[in-house]
Amino acid sequence: MTDTLENQSQDNLEAHLAQVQSLLAKMRLVEDLVHKQGGPRQDLVENLVHKQNLAELRRKLETLHPADIAYILEALPLDERKLVWDQVKAERDGEILLEVSDSVRESLIRTMDKAELLAAAESLDTDEIADIAPDLPKDVIQELLTTLDAQKRAHLQSALAYPEDTVGALMDFEMVTIRADVTLEVALRYLRRLGELPDQLDKLFVVDRDDRIIGVLPLKRLLTSDPEASVAAVMVEDFVKFHPEDEAHEAAQAFERYDLVMAPVVDAQGRLLGRLTVDAVLDYVRESADADMLSMAGLTEEEDLFSSVWRSAKNRWMWLSINLATAFIASRVIGLFEGSIEKLAALAALMPIIAGIGGNTGNQTIALIVRGLALGQITHANARRLVVKELGVATLNGLVWGSVVGVFAWLLYDNVALGGVMALAMLLNLLVAALAGIFIPMTLEKMKRDPAIGSSVLLTFTTDSMGFFIFLGLATLLLL
Amino acid sequence: MTDTLENQSQDNLEAHLAQVQSLLAKMRLVEDLVHKQGGPRQDLVENLVHKQNLAELRRKLETLHPADIAYILEALPLDERKLVWDQVKAERDGEILLEVSDSVRESLIRTMDKAELLAAAESLDTDEIADIAPDLPKDVIQELLTTLDAQKRAHLQSALAYPEDTVGALMDFEMVTIRADVTLEVALRYLRRLGELPDQLDKLFVVDRDDRIIGVLPLKRLLTSDPEASVAAVMVEDFVKFHPEDEAHEAAQAFERYDLVMAPVVDAQGRLLGRLTVDAVLDYVRESADADMLSMAGLTEEEDLFSSVWRSAKNRWMWLSINLATAFIASRVIGLFEGSIEKLAALAALMPIIAGIGGNTGNQTIALIVRGLALGQITHANARRLVVKELGVATLNGLVWGSVVGVFAWLLYDNVALGGVMALAMLLNLLVAALAGIFIPMTLEKMKRDPAIGSSVLLTFTTDSMGFFIFLGLATLLLL
Repeated sequence: MTDTLENQSQDNLEAHLAQVQSLLAKMRLVEDLVHKQGGPRQDLVENLVHKQNLAELRRKLETLHPADIAYILEALPLDERKLVWDQVKAERDGEILLEVSDSVRESLIRTMDKAELLAAAESLDTDEIADIAPDLPKDVIQELLTTLDAQKRAHLQSALAYPEDTVGALMDFEMVTIRADVTLEVALRYLRRLGELPDQLDKLFVVDRDDRIIGVLPLKRLLTSDPEASVAAVMVEDFVKFHPEDEAHEAAQAFERYDLVMAPVVDAQGRLLGRLTVDAVLDYVRESADADMLSMAGLTEEEDLFSSVWRSAKNRWMWLSINLATAFIASRVIGLFEGSIEKLAALAALMPIIAGIGGNTGNQTIALIVRGLALGQITHANARRLVVKELGVATLNGLVWGSVVGVFAWLLYDNVALGGVMALAMLLNLLVAALAGIFIPMTLEKMKRDPAIGSSVLLTFTTDSMGFFIFLGLATLLLL
Repeated sequence: MTDTLENQSQDNLEAHLAQVQSLLAKMRLVEDLVHKQGGPRQDLVENLVHKQNLAELRRKLETLHPADIAYILEALPLDERKLVWDQVKAERDGEILLEVSDSVRESLIRTMDKAELLAAAESLDTDEIADIAPDLPKDVIQELLTTLDAQKRAHLQSALAYPEDTVGALMDFEMVTIRADVTLEVALRYLRRLGELPDQLDKLFVVDRDDRIIGVLPLKRLLTSDPEASVAAVMVEDFVKFHPEDEAHEAAQAFERYDLVMAPVVDAQGRLLGRLTVDAVLDYVRESADADMLSMAGLTEEEDLFSSVWRSAKNRWMWLSINLATAFIASRVIGLFEGSIEKLAALAALMPIIAGIGGNTGNQTIALIVRGLALGQITHANARRLVVKELGVATLNGLVWGSVVGVFAWLLYDNVALGGVMALAMLLNLLVAALAGIFIPMTLEKMKRDPAIGSSVLLTFTTDSMGFFIFLGLATLLLL
């Protein structure tokens, strides 16, 4: 990673993007003009102007940080993205592929041939290759493995072996190890001899003869302690370490909790395997927050802003078909009461209010429970208290808002009994929503499913169906 | 912050919580028993057992990291939370208050008197005091200001002056500065004399006579370069810096993009004010992701898992009243067509399908747009392409899923025309949803409102009302 950072603020980034976009617009304009006029002379002019524009684009891209080029690529539609990507120097391809989102990476890789992909991958560290490997064609990975030396091949294979969302998939192998029996003076000389240290390095790992980690030596201790002291005397023996199969989100919580910059990753015997750094954790936290938000709406990261219509539509179908199925069932619940609705059409106008508010309050409960589950705050011991509290809130809300909608219905239709049914149905559906809002995410969690994703559909299904059933059922019993 | 970390994994954390919970359960059991039997002798026994249990609880808490105690406090209902909080040693109060969520912090502070609050605050750094200041009573802050020395008071006042979500509110003042004209040898000796360095320190700030920052000296360069070289020769002059009024989320993006551990914060003249560290950024990213998720369901961070029923209910009212208002309006749209529904009650059963699927697809578009806006990827130049793409996806989905629901309605009610109306209404409402899904968040963003929060209500309102209107309107025109 380079230390050269000409510009860093979002405003500057947007200015870069705007410059690239206006260059691209200029190129489109020239093309359009020439296409309209035709003729060999214009072709020549076009070629010349086009070449000048391309050269300007290349110069612009050369001044930018890989992460900034990644940002620009994300913001461009497919055809322009390809054009810009072709102007990026081959030796920067790897770093940029690392920075873009999964979907944009796929779109870029589709435009590259095998030789280009190999060159891009070879410019990266093994843990970085592992990050982009899922998007690389199988034959490229095979060929890569044959070109790496034995240690790197082992690293790559081990990084590829760990499932996504584990520490093993996030770790890298850039660390500095040292023995406990040398002095700090020796350690300092050793570092100077190394010449360059990895980024995000805030401590050395102290290992024994068998490569088992027995302590860590924070650089700040190295810098402030007596150079004559031994590493053993200065090192910290009580430190946070991870195993490669640990869940990434738990490691991220440990980084937050203990303000870590890096931590060792060890195997079951305590042998040093790699390290986890805060930049990998920060990227992970951001990406999983993004992925959560998208998947709550039923999207995967397979889609970017400018994916093709076909690809985007397919990405949304699974979700739509699930929602359609639940909507069909809720529709059949209403179908049961078509006779009542024919007699009193006001029921049809009022029933979505009961169902809708039930869905809203239930989703509030879900949001609290999902967060509590993610932070590990909900246990067997306190679940009962939660149910009591949420039922209390639902009762209070049911009395207050049930009265509001009841009075509304009464005044609107000049029908006291209808108002009463409305109020009672609201109270009952809010109680249903509270119970569903607790039990649905907790059951999904127990079944090892992600409660953030499925809960909302199941809840809305419950509050819709039950809302219609309760309201139309009560109305049929009491009004007709 | 301590280097002592006995336990760090989530499993261990949950084990700690379980131990505390079982201790609390034991205490409740003893109380219940004695209350049932009564009598002075039992009182004595109770007192003894109770004291033993409390002592055990205190011992347990003493072994835990402040962040871990914070986690346990979050997971306990109000009464047990207070009991545990009272057993925490006073000198640790400050650190723990820093770690808990806003709502739990409020509940803890409510149980403390002025002297306890002052003692807790005085154990913290000024930037940390600023973090908890919004929850402290005014008179405590006044008194704190009088007890601090001039520099600390200035720090605290400046930290309090910057609005939440700016770099100024996240920065701290623990940095090491050095002059450019000394050698690295001198710098190393200076650090050794300091004795202890701040956490998360990966570089020294090189300042001139006027405290203007002219470069940074990464510790890794200090460690690996020739000690005879001057700071000026080794320092990096092209580095990321922030201003205190910069938005925190843009700074967080820069930390992600450039893999920063810390960066200087400077005023308009380039004078050094403080520093921003990756641990503050990581906390910020996590907290704002959490807050986003809660506020999408209409909750604020004012509520924790065990807030009182009254407090929780109030926290949810604003959202419910907004949703109720939009549901009323949608209900009136249906009211317009009560005549049609009386004639064909099937309309009442089918209309929620049109409205619901419109809401689902619109929310998918919103999720993409909100993410694109947050990452600054949506610009004037590409907005038109986005509209074209989303309309394309809506048309494709409308044809596919419109046919499905059309055939469903046709078969169910043995009415081809009804199926046709259903299919056409679905297509039209998906187009409405796509347009609303783009324009609502983009308009909110232009109005400087958070598109993540308001978009979904407005969208559901649009797709419900328009869905009912399109479907019932078409049915009235074509079927009746």
